[in-house]
Amino acid sequence: MTIITLMSDFGLKDGNVGVMKGVMLGIAPLAQIVDVSHLIQPQDILEAALILRRSAPFFPSGTIHVVVVDPGVGTERRPIGARLGSQVYVGPDNGTVTLLAEYGNERGWELEFFRLDRPEYWLGEVSQVFHGRDIFAPTAAYLANGLRLDQVGSLLSDPVLLKLPKPVSTATGWMGEVIHVDHFGNISTNILMEQLVEKDVRVRLGGEVIDGLVRTFGDGQPGDLIALFGSTGNLILAEVNGSAAQRLKVGVGEAVRVEWRSGQ
Amino acid sequence: MTIITLMSDFGLKDGNVGVMKGVMLGIAPLAQIVDVSHLIQPQDILEAALILRRSAPFFPSGTIHVVVVDPGVGTERRPIGARLGSQVYVGPDNGTVTLLAEYGNERGWELEFFRLDRPEYWLGEVSQVFHGRDIFAPTAAYLANGLRLDQVGSLLSDPVLLKLPKPVSTATGWMGEVIHVDHFGNISTNILMEQLVEKDVRVRLGGEVIDGLVRTFGDGQPGDLIALFGSTGNLILAEVNGSAAQRLKVGVGEAVRVEWRSGQ
Amino acid sequence: MTIITLMSDFGLKDGNVGVMKGVMLGIAPLAQIVDVSHLIQPQDILEAALILRRSAPFFPSGTIHVVVVDPGVGTERRPIGARLGSQVYVGPDNGTVTLLAEYGNERGWELEFFRLDRPEYWLGEVSQVFHGRDIFAPTAAYLANGLRLDQVGSLLSDPVLLKLPKPVSTATGWMGEVIHVDHFGNISTNILMEQLVEKDVRVRLGGEVIDGLVRTFGDGQPGDLIALFGSTGNLILAEVNGSAAQRLKVGVGEAVRVEWRSGQ
Repeated sequence: MTIITLMSDFGLKDGNVGVMKGVMLGIAPLAQIVDVSHLIQPQDILEAALILRRSAPFFPSGTIHVVVVDPGVGTERRPIGARLGSQVYVGPDNGTVTLLAEYGNERGWELEFFRLDRPEYWLGEVSQVFHGRDIFAPTAAYLANGLRLDQVGSLLSDPVLLKLPKPVSTATGWMGEVIHVDHFGNISTNILMEQLVEKDVRVRLGGEVIDGLVRTFGDGQPGDLIALFGSTGNLILAEVNGSAAQRLKVGVGEAVRVEWRSGQ
Repeated sequence: MTIITLMSDFGLKDGNVGVMKGVMLGIAPLAQIVDVSHLIQPQDILEAALILRRSAPFFPSGTIHVVVVDPGVGTERRPIGARLGSQVYVGPDNGTVTLLAEYGNERGWELEFFRLDRPEYWLGEVSQVFHGRDIFAPTAAYLANGLRLDQVGSLLSDPVLLKLPKPVSTATGWMGEVIHVDHFGNISTNILMEQLVEKDVRVRLGGEVIDGLVRTFGDGQPGDLIALFGSTGNLILAEVNGSAAQRLKVGVGEAVRVEWRSGQ
Repeated sequence: MTIITLMSDFGLKDGNVGVMKGVMLGIAPLAQIVDVSHLIQPQDILEAALILRRSAPFFPSGTIHVVVVDPGVGTERRPIGARLGSQVYVGPDNGTVTLLAEYGNERGWELEFFRLDRPEYWLGEVSQVFHGRDIFAPTAAYLANGLRLDQVGSLLSDPVLLKLPKPVSTATGWMGEVIHVDHFGNISTNILMEQLVEKDVRVRLGGEVIDGLVRTFGDGQPGDLIALFGSTGNLILAEVNGSAAQRLKVGVGEAVRVEWRSGQ
């Protein structure tokens, strides 16, 4: 009853996700497959890395996370598997695993990476353009059936890891940036709750100023622009019952600044 | 093998639905999870109530319906569970359950409401902004494992219930309103099949007049504007192979009028 | 543990797919239900036929494919089941099954068609507008429980089959057309890898000319317009990390021309 999660930039209209599930269930009929997202922005490896980092820790030990955001499909980029503590990643070697690996590192998880190089665990015919179906789905299914990563691949010491923007501490507070905009238009930044030891702050983003933090959405009136901590501890900006992203017209990468107010 | 259904306004891109499933499967590995909709309009409790009322009766006895459309998350609004005949609701106490409760009432279902007040059945750490993950998912999973509602909460006598617009009988027919626009652009009204004892009617909406009812979509030609009864017995307006909502430029709340034609 | 796949043009917001799953799990609690797509263009039978043909072969023997793209619901169009080798189709008799049947024919699959005419395997009350819920879901569930097609229907000799555009061989190459545009904006044509015995070709579409084929997306630079073979062997046109469909402003039905270059 191993869980396999799926994430991709495939969208939901063309049936490609269904095809991957057909392949997996043909090999591992008892696997429990869970969709995490198939609406990752096309080719946006960083967004996939972020959502993997946010979701994987909530899955039970032994869950296999298949992530296919894969602009390098069919090129020299390697297919990999990774053991991250009790979680497993299967997908392209393009940095998708970076943030979950960092998260695990901070918690003392054991990390191991494997190059998937055993075609006997792939589909018989491998296309140049759909390794999700031909390599990653069958490999994940064999892992769900109990094979170990060292049986479907060979140890690898140099996985591709992304270089990620970190917030910077300044004399007056923190400088960070927008890392995600969610379905509601809430804006997530890379500034973390534990960095704001002093919670009496002013937040500046996209020409707007927000004075003070609130605890939750209902602490503002509809239409208010608020700053608060999201469900994974990041500083987020939101419009109550509205879209902060639409209002501020900002996207990923935009600078955000937090200033201590107590010093005034 | 208890079924848990999920409904929310979370959208499908951010992985929040997957996270809830990870939490549930960690507690109840054998639960069968079914998505009903995650594209409820943000904060639209009435739309969630309507879709819950339309979908729950088609699920087997004992199904647990988790609905998280929750603008009041983290405020004083209570987390609740409800027994509605053989169906169970888990979610915020904000009226989402109203229409299913009314439906059950008309059929003599027993209704019981519980305030979820046993944090031992929640995640260890509860955020202020994501009770779907931290309270509702684990509670539903424990219920799927066989716990009773009175074990995860305490009886509650005053659940929040919405006041819903009812159609009004007039000298010449009925006055009602639009309650839903579906994916096809079909317009659903709150006027019911059983109210139109006389089926020879004229329907007026958004400046257009439709003379007579048809049985099904194929009874008109592509492009025809038709009126008929939808799959739950509501009067609906549709454009054959097109979008009535786009054509009539009407949305939820718009007045609709039905007039008897026999009197002419 | 029979697999039932679901495809429809229902969209994902109204709960209709969830309702079908509720009906199926009430009858066949152990069925494994997999979504293939619910974002088929409304009433686009050809698109559903294409995605069924591309996805069904990747599912295990005995999988039951329920496809509900059904503009003729409630009219004289028949509900059918079909045995296509080891795969089963359940849905309206409107040609959706055509491409999978052709695919099976070429491979010597046995094909049998049945009119679903046993209301004892439908819901007690059958609406005129939602046979997905009332006829196809319960029938598929009974099949998943082990009933045979000849128990839920009667042999049928004249299923509706679509007439599909085939590419035409010319003196200088092939004339074909666009048959699908995917989530990425990649353009799929009806010209197949096996038809292009000579791979040194020039492709013309929407006023643009592409010289030569590449193997995969990463063989071009971001922004390049490329031609290559997709994962099911069709000639596709793509913009690397972009949308070819948006750039060329072409849709399904647009003419595409392939010319041999070696003759120059």
